[in-house]
Amino acid sequence: MNLLNKEDIEHIAVGAAVLGTGGGGDPYIGKMMALSAIEKYGPVKVITVDDLHEHDWVLPASGMGSPSVLVEKIPSFEQLENPLRTYEQVSGVQASVIMPIEVGGVNSLIPVAVAAMTGLPILDGDAMGRAFPEAQMVTFHLDGIKPGLVAIADEQGNTVTIQPKDGFWAEKLARMTTIAMGGSSIVCDYGITGATAKKSVIPGTLTLAKEIGKLLHEQRTADVHPITQMLDMLGGFRLFKGKVNQIERKIVGGFTRGEASLTGIDEDEHSAFKLFFQNEHLLAEKDGKPAAMTPDLIAVLDEETGMPVTTEGLKYGARVVVCAFPANEKWRTEIGIETAGPRYFKYPYDYVALETLVKEGHSK
Amino acid sequence: MNLLNKEDIEHIAVGAAVLGTGGGGDPYIGKMMALSAIEKYGPVKVITVDDLHEHDWVLPASGMGSPSVLVEKIPSFEQLENPLRTYEQVSGVQASVIMPIEVGGVNSLIPVAVAAMTGLPILDGDAMGRAFPEAQMVTFHLDGIKPGLVAIADEQGNTVTIQPKDGFWAEKLARMTTIAMGGSSIVCDYGITGATAKKSVIPGTLTLAKEIGKLLHEQRTADVHPITQMLDMLGGFRLFKGKVNQIERKIVGGFTRGEASLTGIDEDEHSAFKLFFQNEHLLAEKDGKPAAMTPDLIAVLDEETGMPVTTEGLKYGARVVVCAFPANEKWRTEIGIETAGPRYFKYPYDYVALETLVKEGHSK
Repeated sequence: MNLLNKEDIEHIAVGAAVLGTGGGGDPYIGKMMALSAIEKYGPVKVITVDDLHEHDWVLPASGMGSPSVLVEKIPSFEQLENPLRTYEQVSGVQASVIMPIEVGGVNSLIPVAVAAMTGLPILDGDAMGRAFPEAQMVTFHLDGIKPGLVAIADEQGNTVTIQPKDGFWAEKLARMTTIAMGGSSIVCDYGITGATAKKSVIPGTLTLAKEIGKLLHEQRTADVHPITQMLDMLGGFRLFKGKVNQIERKIVGGFTRGEASLTGIDEDEHSAFKLFFQNEHLLAEKDGKPAAMTPDLIAVLDEETGMPVTTEGLKYGARVVVCAFPANEKWRTEIGIETAGPRYFKYPYDYVALETLVKEGHSK
Repeated sequence: MNLLNKEDIEHIAVGAAVLGTGGGGDPYIGKMMALSAIEKYGPVKVITVDDLHEHDWVLPASGMGSPSVLVEKIPSFEQLENPLRTYEQVSGVQASVIMPIEVGGVNSLIPVAVAAMTGLPILDGDAMGRAFPEAQMVTFHLDGIKPGLVAIADEQGNTVTIQPKDGFWAEKLARMTTIAMGGSSIVCDYGITGATAKKSVIPGTLTLAKEIGKLLHEQRTADVHPITQMLDMLGGFRLFKGKVNQIERKIVGGFTRGEASLTGIDEDEHSAFKLFFQNEHLLAEKDGKPAAMTPDLIAVLDEETGMPVTTEGLKYGARVVVCAFPANEKWRTEIGIETAGPRYFKYPYDYVALETLVKEGHSK
């Protein structure tokens, strides 16, 4: 893809909802924002990490806050543009490329909308390879890169800029600002040079999202079940098939936090399953034992259509298949696990790689 | 006073604790900050509103947050200077005069410290004529002046700037930032021209604080009780003499909120009294009826020494005299009462002027 077309965006929305592991809000909203921005401001050119010049200034744009709020408070064009303009004004640096901070839900398409509005290209790559709930959970942080200036805007016309000490303070101050702004905001942070982006970005993730979306779309009419195809493509595993029998969800600390209980159906009819989430699914337990854990990806898919289900969209009675995929190797390092592993989120487990958990599960 | 000397600062600290109506934290801390800044950086010149040039840029500097936290997290020189430097960097405007945003507690002397550090003069005047708990409770707001850029710093080296829609959003966003910073911060906001300052500042309030402090100091050895002298000087009233028998205080929403109950002694021995505060004393009730209410000033003084007692310093068993003074006329207007009257703070009373309450109390 060189210029993003309507079909690309439809596919990215679906694929990013899979990689978004339940977080990042309704992909429909991201799709509508990107499509309406392109319609109004013109097409968006996609460039790869290899296309970057050393001195490019690559600026991520994203939504922050609770997806439960974001879907009710859809950003205007003005709000989408304000963080970038404020960032440029305060830092004195002009962005030359826009990038997604995460390839998850709305946040893979908000930067596409910003790129359309500013006429800048979008980078095919992100800083998570999935979605994570907190701002410092980025490959930049793992590589020792600080967030630099953080610019935040709400829908009222307020803007805030933060010059934080480190990624944790950026998260804390931006999160509180977002809460004060009513629970969701648009953010630009971790502006980096092209040279740094080449080292630290996880490349090709917009394309990956597009391919996942395309596969799920095409396979709707194929003989092979779309989920099976996707698992092959991503090296993932089918963990559980079940029906949601309980879901608890609350907005706390600027996040949507909660858990869902599932009763098994078909081959899993004698098992129970639990999902724990903070915006994203972070832990899955089968019969009281961990089945997959962050930073590995946990995706919940509609049993019939294979379409991803967000933590927002998870409803009582829904019949779903839970799948999991190995995280990018950057997340499976010591600092990766320290930054976004189960202990960080206060779950009572040391990280065990998905493949090991699956092998152990089968051997019992 | 032209150059502030050590004695001036001692007196201002005491007088500002009276005008601070219980808020603004321990005056001892403000005094130490101002004195150590002057010792390290040199003397501070005081100028009057009449001395201002039209094109001066007058920048208030103040502490924000809960005084209970401030007294435990004393700002460093670096923290005191960061908001001004960030303000100048982001706005591109250089401050030429520093001013206190309120003449209350620590906040009358924090700007003196900032003035010493930057070599700029301090304005003899403030934007409240007392202390108030929220950022938009300033004469600037009453005069339709917006806060402009708000710059905030903590002791960790984090800085935040806000470009708010209006004074209420400035308060909300700065308050949440302050909470994220651990409960107290240093702020520069409401930067104004000399021309605007001439119209909107309440003049001479540092001098007033100094005179009150001087009086209380000198009268400690005089025949006439110092409180009586002070009431004459300020046109105030003695409301109650009593002993604190209960005090509740909690840090909530970034403020110290609470209430104190007093049992009468001497001429008030058959009466009961209550004080309600949010950082500052905002309402006083005698025998269940309002005796004084915001925006008029309520000051609690040590019965023996006449020294002001902050809401932090109010202890069980303390013997105190509660006094009240009429607020500056700017606060007794419709917008003044709307901004900082009892209904704003959710107290169940319409504003009645102190003089009327006193007259009614005597006629019963």
